[in-house]
Amino acid sequence: MEEREISQAVIRRLPRYYRYLGELLENGVERISSNDLSKRMKVTASQIRQDLNNFGGFGQQGYGYNVKYLYTEIGKILGLEQHHNIIIIGAGNLGQALANYADFEKRGFILKGIFDVNPTLADVSIRGVPVRMMDELEQFVRENDIEIGVLTIPKTKAVEVANNLVNNGVRAIWNFAHIDLNLPENVIVENVHLSESLMRLSYNISRYHEEHKESK
Amino acid sequence: MEEREISQAVIRRLPRYYRYLGELLENGVERISSNDLSKRMKVTASQIRQDLNNFGGFGQQGYGYNVKYLYTEIGKILGLEQHHNIIIIGAGNLGQALANYADFEKRGFILKGIFDVNPTLADVSIRGVPVRMMDELEQFVRENDIEIGVLTIPKTKAVEVANNLVNNGVRAIWNFAHIDLNLPENVIVENVHLSESLMRLSYNISRYHEEHKESK
Repeated sequence: MEEREISQAVIRRLPRYYRYLGELLENGVERISSNDLSKRMKVTASQIRQDLNNFGGFGQQGYGYNVKYLYTEIGKILGLEQHHNIIIIGAGNLGQALANYADFEKRGFILKGIFDVNPTLADVSIRGVPVRMMDELEQFVRENDIEIGVLTIPKTKAVEVANNLVNNGVRAIWNFAHIDLNLPENVIVENVHLSESLMRLSYNISRYHEEHKESK
Repeated sequence: MEEREISQAVIRRLPRYYRYLGELLENGVERISSNDLSKRMKVTASQIRQDLNNFGGFGQQGYGYNVKYLYTEIGKILGLEQHHNIIIIGAGNLGQALANYADFEKRGFILKGIFDVNPTLADVSIRGVPVRMMDELEQFVRENDIEIGVLTIPKTKAVEVANNLVNNGVRAIWNFAHIDLNLPENVIVENVHLSESLMRLSYNISRYHEEHKESK
């Protein structure tokens, strides 16, 4: 297949396709037209055709999409058939919530370790994975082929820990700390800035109130 | 001020400006040029000027931006000076992580209640807010002027609970359940789909590996 650059906008939509197709599969749906998928997903049918054409289409004119095939192919594109060793830094509520997230394994993410500075957590295990202290971090990362680090620690420590992970071979960071990490360009960073999400919500509420006031 | 439509792209960037300006304030910086802000934020200076012009600019040619003024004004635009009563549905790890998030109050979000179906949580309080059982939900929402509901419950229950909240007066949902809610158009929904974020990370890792292979 010819390589071409896929826009970040398309990539942002792929996981949503994957989720919907997964739900269709669970409900025993074998085929779906772009029109039906369009109605469910509230995206235009032409957008769907255009997006899926980026990957060779998969659709057959008049027959719709084969749900299982499309689900599997998008899963491959998303890299979900590969295994990635992952560790979580920060065993607070958020770190524990993520560690308990069973879909991790389903998506090929193998939770290898959880780290924290708090000694009272030293005897705790989450889904069979013990919480380790931070002084074991570097050696653990090197010896266990850790590819992804999840940061659920305060922003004051996040930059230092991220650099430390990268120096020991980690290639990607799932960052929940409220700070930009400024890592080397070859490190993949996916940020989840919850406070920014909350501010967007706040903005949209104020905006709605204002518009509502005006229309009275 | 004349009303005009601000693009969602600009709105998505505003919380990031707010975060950076907040950090500058904490560090005692009083003025900053769009060039300096540009270097810190890794956004072009012209993008910054263009974005902030949407709200009347705030900048004075040659003097740069007054950090405190800009921070305050963006805060107002984001609606952070208003108070919103908020409840969390789902007192698991994620719900507790959010309930413990002290920045809530700083941003004008007042945590009024936490709800769960699990009776073993009935005696638990988080930051002084007791966990209540779901059968109290409807009355509580009506009597406490609840504006925002945070959903940290499984997707199988999320749609029903969201509709229930909306029918009792809730105007906005911060949705962590892995499902689209399809609520009436006047209800504001901000989704945080963590599994989709994880898939983007996975995609970017595979993509990087492929490109790396090719360049060898």
